[in-house]
Amino acid sequence: MSRNKKRNLGIFDMINPFDFRYYSRNKEVLEKCAPFLSEEGMIRHMTEVEIAVVKELEVEGIALKGSANDAERAASHVTASEVYEEEDRIKHNVRALVNVMRRNMNEKNARFVHLGVTSHDIICTADSLRYKRFVSHALVPELRKLEKLLIDIALREKSTLQIGRTHGQHAEPLTFGFALSEYVSRLGGRIMRIDEAASNLVGKISGAVGAYNASSLLLKDPVLFEKRVLRRLSLKPATHSTQIAEPEHLLDLIHAVISALGVLANLADDMRHLQRTEIAEVKEEFLSEQVGSSTMPHKRNPINFENVKSMFKAISPRIVTYYLDQISEHQRDLTNSASSRFIPEIFASLFASSVRLRRVLSRLRVDAPSLKSNFNRSRDMIRAEPLYILLSYYGYPNAHEKVRQLTLISEKSGRSFLEAVKGDKELRRYLMKFTDDQMKILENPEYYTGMAEKKTASVCSFWSHQLKL
Amino acid sequence: MSRNKKRNLGIFDMINPFDFRYYSRNKEVLEKCAPFLSEEGMIRHMTEVEIAVVKELEVEGIALKGSANDAERAASHVTASEVYEEEDRIKHNVRALVNVMRRNMNEKNARFVHLGVTSHDIICTADSLRYKRFVSHALVPELRKLEKLLIDIALREKSTLQIGRTHGQHAEPLTFGFALSEYVSRLGGRIMRIDEAASNLVGKISGAVGAYNASSLLLKDPVLFEKRVLRRLSLKPATHSTQIAEPEHLLDLIHAVISALGVLANLADDMRHLQRTEIAEVKEEFLSEQVGSSTMPHKRNPINFENVKSMFKAISPRIVTYYLDQISEHQRDLTNSASSRFIPEIFASLFASSVRLRRVLSRLRVDAPSLKSNFNRSRDMIRAEPLYILLSYYGYPNAHEKVRQLTLISEKSGRSFLEAVKGDKELRRYLMKFTDDQMKILENPEYYTGMAEKKTASVCSFWSHQLKL
Amino acid sequence: MSRNKKRNLGIFDMINPFDFRYYSRNKEVLEKCAPFLSEEGMIRHMTEVEIAVVKELEVEGIALKGSANDAERAASHVTASEVYEEEDRIKHNVRALVNVMRRNMNEKNARFVHLGVTSHDIICTADSLRYKRFVSHALVPELRKLEKLLIDIALREKSTLQIGRTHGQHAEPLTFGFALSEYVSRLGGRIMRIDEAASNLVGKISGAVGAYNASSLLLKDPVLFEKRVLRRLSLKPATHSTQIAEPEHLLDLIHAVISALGVLANLADDMRHLQRTEIAEVKEEFLSEQVGSSTMPHKRNPINFENVKSMFKAISPRIVTYYLDQISEHQRDLTNSASSRFIPEIFASLFASSVRLRRVLSRLRVDAPSLKSNFNRSRDMIRAEPLYILLSYYGYPNAHEKVRQLTLISEKSGRSFLEAVKGDKELRRYLMKFTDDQMKILENPEYYTGMAEKKTASVCSFWSHQLKL
Amino acid sequence: MSRNKKRNLGIFDMINPFDFRYYSRNKEVLEKCAPFLSEEGMIRHMTEVEIAVVKELEVEGIALKGSANDAERAASHVTASEVYEEEDRIKHNVRALVNVMRRNMNEKNARFVHLGVTSHDIICTADSLRYKRFVSHALVPELRKLEKLLIDIALREKSTLQIGRTHGQHAEPLTFGFALSEYVSRLGGRIMRIDEAASNLVGKISGAVGAYNASSLLLKDPVLFEKRVLRRLSLKPATHSTQIAEPEHLLDLIHAVISALGVLANLADDMRHLQRTEIAEVKEEFLSEQVGSSTMPHKRNPINFENVKSMFKAISPRIVTYYLDQISEHQRDLTNSASSRFIPEIFASLFASSVRLRRVLSRLRVDAPSLKSNFNRSRDMIRAEPLYILLSYYGYPNAHEKVRQLTLISEKSGRSFLEAVKGDKELRRYLMKFTDDQMKILENPEYYTGMAEKKTASVCSFWSHQLKL
Repeated sequence: MSRNKKRNLGIFDMINPFDFRYYSRNKEVLEKCAPFLSEEGMIRHMTEVEIAVVKELEVEGIALKGSANDAERAASHVTASEVYEEEDRIKHNVRALVNVMRRNMNEKNARFVHLGVTSHDIICTADSLRYKRFVSHALVPELRKLEKLLIDIALREKSTLQIGRTHGQHAEPLTFGFALSEYVSRLGGRIMRIDEAASNLVGKISGAVGAYNASSLLLKDPVLFEKRVLRRLSLKPATHSTQIAEPEHLLDLIHAVISALGVLANLADDMRHLQRTEIAEVKEEFLSEQVGSSTMPHKRNPINFENVKSMFKAISPRIVTYYLDQISEHQRDLTNSASSRFIPEIFASLFASSVRLRRVLSRLRVDAPSLKSNFNRSRDMIRAEPLYILLSYYGYPNAHEKVRQLTLISEKSGRSFLEAVKGDKELRRYLMKFTDDQMKILENPEYYTGMAEKKTASVCSFWSHQLKL
Repeated sequence: MSRNKKRNLGIFDMINPFDFRYYSRNKEVLEKCAPFLSEEGMIRHMTEVEIAVVKELEVEGIALKGSANDAERAASHVTASEVYEEEDRIKHNVRALVNVMRRNMNEKNARFVHLGVTSHDIICTADSLRYKRFVSHALVPELRKLEKLLIDIALREKSTLQIGRTHGQHAEPLTFGFALSEYVSRLGGRIMRIDEAASNLVGKISGAVGAYNASSLLLKDPVLFEKRVLRRLSLKPATHSTQIAEPEHLLDLIHAVISALGVLANLADDMRHLQRTEIAEVKEEFLSEQVGSSTMPHKRNPINFENVKSMFKAISPRIVTYYLDQISEHQRDLTNSASSRFIPEIFASLFASSVRLRRVLSRLRVDAPSLKSNFNRSRDMIRAEPLYILLSYYGYPNAHEKVRQLTLISEKSGRSFLEAVKGDKELRRYLMKFTDDQMKILENPEYYTGMAEKKTASVCSFWSHQLKL
Repeated sequence: MSRNKKRNLGIFDMINPFDFRYYSRNKEVLEKCAPFLSEEGMIRHMTEVEIAVVKELEVEGIALKGSANDAERAASHVTASEVYEEEDRIKHNVRALVNVMRRNMNEKNARFVHLGVTSHDIICTADSLRYKRFVSHALVPELRKLEKLLIDIALREKSTLQIGRTHGQHAEPLTFGFALSEYVSRLGGRIMRIDEAASNLVGKISGAVGAYNASSLLLKDPVLFEKRVLRRLSLKPATHSTQIAEPEHLLDLIHAVISALGVLANLADDMRHLQRTEIAEVKEEFLSEQVGSSTMPHKRNPINFENVKSMFKAISPRIVTYYLDQISEHQRDLTNSASSRFIPEIFASLFASSVRLRRVLSRLRVDAPSLKSNFNRSRDMIRAEPLYILLSYYGYPNAHEKVRQLTLISEKSGRSFLEAVKGDKELRRYLMKFTDDQMKILENPEYYTGMAEKKTASVCSFWSHQLKL
Repeated sequence: MSRNKKRNLGIFDMINPFDFRYYSRNKEVLEKCAPFLSEEGMIRHMTEVEIAVVKELEVEGIALKGSANDAERAASHVTASEVYEEEDRIKHNVRALVNVMRRNMNEKNARFVHLGVTSHDIICTADSLRYKRFVSHALVPELRKLEKLLIDIALREKSTLQIGRTHGQHAEPLTFGFALSEYVSRLGGRIMRIDEAASNLVGKISGAVGAYNASSLLLKDPVLFEKRVLRRLSLKPATHSTQIAEPEHLLDLIHAVISALGVLANLADDMRHLQRTEIAEVKEEFLSEQVGSSTMPHKRNPINFENVKSMFKAISPRIVTYYLDQISEHQRDLTNSASSRFIPEIFASLFASSVRLRRVLSRLRVDAPSLKSNFNRSRDMIRAEPLYILLSYYGYPNAHEKVRQLTLISEKSGRSFLEAVKGDKELRRYLMKFTDDQMKILENPEYYTGMAEKKTASVCSFWSHQLKL
């Protein structure tokens, strides 16, 4: 049958790169994400919600004893393919699932499946269920592994001198571990935000317009009934719902996920730039068979870091779709239906990017000689800041301007800045006030790393405790 | 001087509609927002941070006694105009502010202003300070007023029958108050999220690359110093910072604000559609002098609701800018500088939209006859759902399909659906099982409002308590 | 092998709704799009570019006679699956394709495949090739069918009276055909824009940094060589290229496609609202087996129109990704690689939405009684505009204000507006000046449709000629 | 009056950074943009359209002789401030303008102002008029100056050796002029696109729903009348219009402008990276009084290039607003009103960014020693590509893999790549086949710049002719 042939399409007949490239090619990504994010996974979660309803109807004495077991048994044989065939016939996806479940049930029990609920009771609840589970079973565990790895590297490199950079210009020195601890902190914060947003996801069993019209025909307290059904699924009910649950809960999760991807993208971007030929402070390990360029055999391109940034650019604008989906006319229009089907891709993009970053970071090589030689380029000039501050402190009236002038003099004369400073008569009486420690920093700017090392340790310690790593 | 002339531009020489139209024209908006969101307001907050630093330097024994008072006095004379003139000269905005402050100070104290801090210590901290204050002093109070008004209307109309609508089609009945309670709940949730996000904003006094390089020259414990300066401003320090604070805290606030605007836009959109000529369930009050159309004198256009939706379309895509600004190379590049200057507009758009909605909702007229006549269009057909559910419940095997067939028969025959149902012999023995209450609903579908009224009350009560309204 | 198992994933193991739902389920969409938009299709086009290069190398006397035929034969056996396996090994997709092609070739010819070109010579050129063909072979023919259908309906309904609506309020009358001719015109314009943008797509055979470094080793005139290779593929060379072609050409096509989807979305939105229960001017035909709601058997939801709008909300923000991809550092960074793989989905979304709209519009029923009764609601009041204009014309000083007052009087008194007008003594001497035609319109506002009918005809005629339909 | 006080707000009471910082502070930007993009400018253009209508009504014999002159005279006294005051009273902006114009006219003429037209006839036409003029009088002349400057620099530096970079890694050599000619070409293309889009802007005089209802009361051929009015303004009529003109024409211009900003942003980003301390191939000239950092006196930050990229991030997502505004219900809803008022900012951002780039590029210093020393880092290794290609050409079977191996050997052994090559016995017989020219390149990779110099010249020449510079 042509239908069947169509369904047996190969993976390379797909048009979405997630499916044929980033998700299905990667065993680690596929196995963790599929149960929650695939269409098969969605249908699995929908049956689970249908069953929870029947169970509670049984408790209420409405469904016949044994109906829930019957439904559960029937559901275990349902496949997405079968549901889609039924949908092709009747043009309604939830009713299709219900029909397919019922077919496999004893006729006397069948009618209790979906009794008193509406399609979106099932869909909204199943989505919350699968996304919440995805976060706790797959996404957060993955991000915690990445966080742990970042902490390990940050602590390992907490004393490795690196020149700090602002505007792409050498600024003040710090340590490589300190630079990484930025990401420890930002990723830590995002993990907490994701966790919180997922735990706020709600279900609903409130019927076609949210007023419990249907269920109140059968039940004394349909609001309590909703609560009990959802408790079976470890979900809370929405404070209010229409045909659908309030969109803001899921929207907050999408925001948390995209902003976490933004943190990974920034990390990736930094690593990418640190691999520039002229900077070369870090290196991705290359496999011996790996080809860098189809035409330049010597190239070593930071393709993994580039991929993470590219994914961020592809995914981040999509948040706008979900702001737009906040607007649903009256008790709901369906213009959020197709669009909401793209949400799993957003979640998978963060998961896949984290897996990718872990792999490449675990083999990252930090190049000490490059760090040193880059620092040395500015070793002389970075004395400008501590000098200006100490001069100010010791009472020199317009120290910032004075020091700026001295940097210009040094640049023009070719003498080192330190020599220019020492040669300046006006400054002499101020320099004499400097303490030994202060003078040591001026002479050896590699000591001018402030609290970099201590702060690395405290940031890593804070997040280890906070996340119980 | 041409400079001056340029600065004396009139409001209609501006190109941004916020400035010349939505913000400055509206006294209520202007007076509440300007202290925090205008450029003058920003400079005011920057001076406040500079002063807090000097105060703490005084406590540490670094600044001379009286320096902070001197700075405070000097700052009170500083105008944005003066700062901009200095910036035109030296091309650096924070240094310009520092110069202007120092000019007005005793020379011996002047050098302690900005000692040991970097521009973005001041800017990031001042931004957090003004946005946090804006939220607590202006935005949340405004949104709470709107929430209160929504609760009042929802309770007033909690028993007003309205036909529920999904896909633009009549669905099941509910009440107008219940429909509004959706927005009570969603706006309530957003107020809490905004509040939380604002309280998470952080400051930083950690220097040019975040490692406290400069401050550690002068202070034993620069991390503690940072904490103390910020405590003066009721802010927490960032867990980690580079030249700038972690961007995610402010990003979360932007998200919370835009998603709140989305809730207002949905409400506005609903009200807009309820004003359609054919629906006419609500009306905006028109002023006697108001003109609806320059050419159709009878028009009554829902321009306020349209404006709120339009503002949402203008503002919501801007979140993407701030995702992009998460990426800042190494210890910071400046490519987030111009873009971050547009943030106040986002905040003002929510404020202005709330003020606008309050005004129009407070005069909203609910048209009872239209509600009734719209309901009556579907009075007969909405029996389909309760009938199908009760038939299922009482054991009719394929009730959904049966009822669907009956709706088609009724449509074709021109007989009412109720007559078609009553005339169906097969159904007779099932209908006989219906309880009186169930039969009453079938006969009088206006009773088929489920928990609409009770739920309205409970939602309003929940949010009144939650927000202490 | 686990590898293989992974590759044999079923369609419902996918996470992207395009793949499992909108594209692969629809035979018409799949068959037209797959050759160009699937990964298999991409690899097919890449081999075609590789072959064109070998052919031209043969012409230049560099490749051995017969090499191109050999390459062509070898390429015919290449599958995406094989290429991906090789890529898994060597981590470079184009080199993988080259390896796989060469394996099947005579050793003496093999080395001429990819000689002197770089990966992105192949990728950029293949993308331009497949997208250009997709537009001319699939997308534009499909859109032309939709345009033709719109013209047919517009002409059929060119005299069908409909009340015009602005702000959701009844405005002046027009015809249903005139309303549709808006979309004839806007879609016509987009078809031309898409066509133009596709014809501007360029290829490039200029090497790793665009300076023809490699090809200039072998060839006297590498610029001419590039032109000849591309002429074989009916493509123009880029005016300038780096490793990649200028991104703006493809960006313009993406813009044209998304803006065309916007036109379809507006059409869909109008049809959706015209199906509102209270308006009911059009109806989608429902299949006899179709289920409208899982719980409300009588519902007839405009799901196809909703789907088109939803798709637009899902796709339109993605343009931002491609603005961001305009920025590629120096001669190219790879941060546009993953993101550019999502482009086919954008193109498929327009194709699928057009197919969907055609199907539903071809069965659209226009409900004459509803059109009439809706018009009648405002029949009286719409006289306000012609009256005000004619009064002005005949010299009444402040006609707009006068008429506005009369509408208020009519509203309050309950008398018809026409009666209020006729009863106004002040107006009498002006009304007497009205011509018969003018009076006829005032008496019978259904004639007040201006040029609606003529304009419908001229718009349809214009676009039929313009597009040679 | 409090009203007045509010209107006399200073520039620093504004919240939009465009108004107080980027637009009004910059004389060049302000003077060129204000006549078209300010609110005062908009009102000026609206009066011009109103006058054109009266003129044509006079020609048609409908308006009294002299009415148009009277209107023109009256209009010359109208100020935005006055119009806004009237709008505050009657809540309708176009009617306010009409009232203010009429007040200043002879009573017998006054009624012909706005006779037979609707607000959006005026607004849409005035917007097209001012944007078209802005493009031709301000934007394109400015962009042409930038293009000219880029051509000058590209030609000046067409032989300046620079290492090409892909993925941030050294690739093949080219010239600095060639690198710049990328932007000559891309900006050239965008100028043409902007020009074309602006010339496609249309006006409309077709009334409240686009069907010429009102004007057909007065005129025999209202379509011809529309054409004549618009011809006075050098505009074409829309092929079809509703209350508003088809949105796609203006949308195309917005796209062209944003994508041009994307080109500038990429250029700025490249220049930014070339200024990195480790690369240092270009330098922005610093003013002697300029301060780079408030705390690091030696810093030279590329703030102008950063600003351009930041502006692009702020502006580019806004396109989504205008896709959304494609959807306007029926003959128009007003949800595009507030949003469309933000369009001038988009145009001004490109103008201001171009002015900024011109200033900084005109003083850009190219640092020859840095270019040389950066090239030298990779001088040895870049031989890999020409070697691999020539080996392939001369029949070496798997040259790419062989050369890749040699690069690894060279890396490990510490010997130069050239030595490793020469020392390889297997290669000897192939190397002997190399021509002198080929060998020269292998020995001196600085000659391996392909067509860089020639291509620079041809690209610059092409665009000079194309744009008649």
